[in-house]
Amino acid sequence: MKLDSAGLRILSRQECVALLATASIGRIVFTDQALPAVQPVNFVLDGEDIVIRTGVGSKLAAAAGNAIVAFEADEFDPVARTGWSVTAVGPARAVHEPGEIERLSALPLRTWVPGSRDHYIVVRAEQITGRRISSRYDERET
Amino acid sequence: MKLDSAGLRILSRQECVALLATASIGRIVFTDQALPAVQPVNFVLDGEDIVIRTGVGSKLAAAAGNAIVAFEADEFDPVARTGWSVTAVGPARAVHEPGEIERLSALPLRTWVPGSRDHYIVVRAEQITGRRISSRYDERET
Repeated sequence: MKLDSAGLRILSRQECVALLATASIGRIVFTDQALPAVQPVNFVLDGEDIVIRTGVGSKLAAAAGNAIVAFEADEFDPVARTGWSVTAVGPARAVHEPGEIERLSALPLRTWVPGSRDHYIVVRAEQITGRRISSRYDERET
Repeated sequence: MKLDSAGLRILSRQECVALLATASIGRIVFTDQALPAVQPVNFVLDGEDIVIRTGVGSKLAAAAGNAIVAFEADEFDPVARTGWSVTAVGPARAVHEPGEIERLSALPLRTWVPGSRDHYIVVRAEQITGRRISSRYDERET
């Protein structure tokens, strides 16, 4: 079991992808007018790519259309103080090709927000890193 | 009730701060070696400032010590598909003054991760924005 400098368990890429597959919401991190920006989004995995949907004219579509972005998902239990966090970093691209849009629209991606969201953005997860916070008891065991 | 272009309810600054006060974990968004980075952190509010604790030599301490960062907290119910998200953007600063460190150390900030975390970072929330996703029924009502 590998621990980082803060004592958190380092997850393998495989573990990270498996955890991402259990989540339905994550946060996309991008730059908006030279400032850091973060927005919760529904997503689905397409292999190891992260697929999100947004409105054509959205800030997210404009800012993340062709940039390096980060994507984070996590799950924490405030009572047990356990949880995990996975972050993917890589290029985002807007999808324009009709065949690909058709294929992506068949994925089980459900967005919670109302309104038209016909614009797909795909983030290629070039780097995936993840950490798990175990319970304090587990930590003492390692 | 104000809605944004995606149909989400826009929260007032006061509502955002009240929601932040209910959360114990958030995500700090910064730039690490020219790439977007995001890291979950325990935090506490000091007025409207966000106070986090980290290790002296951490990546976060190095990158967020004196930069404009974003800080996001949220809470979602995947079954009801409701929830809220609040993002603060502003300058982060490392705290060095002994009197301020003493004052901050009295705040109810509990970190879940093990190890020494004697380095305080304070984010001044110059901008706070927030959204609430209501249930689909509520949306139709508006």
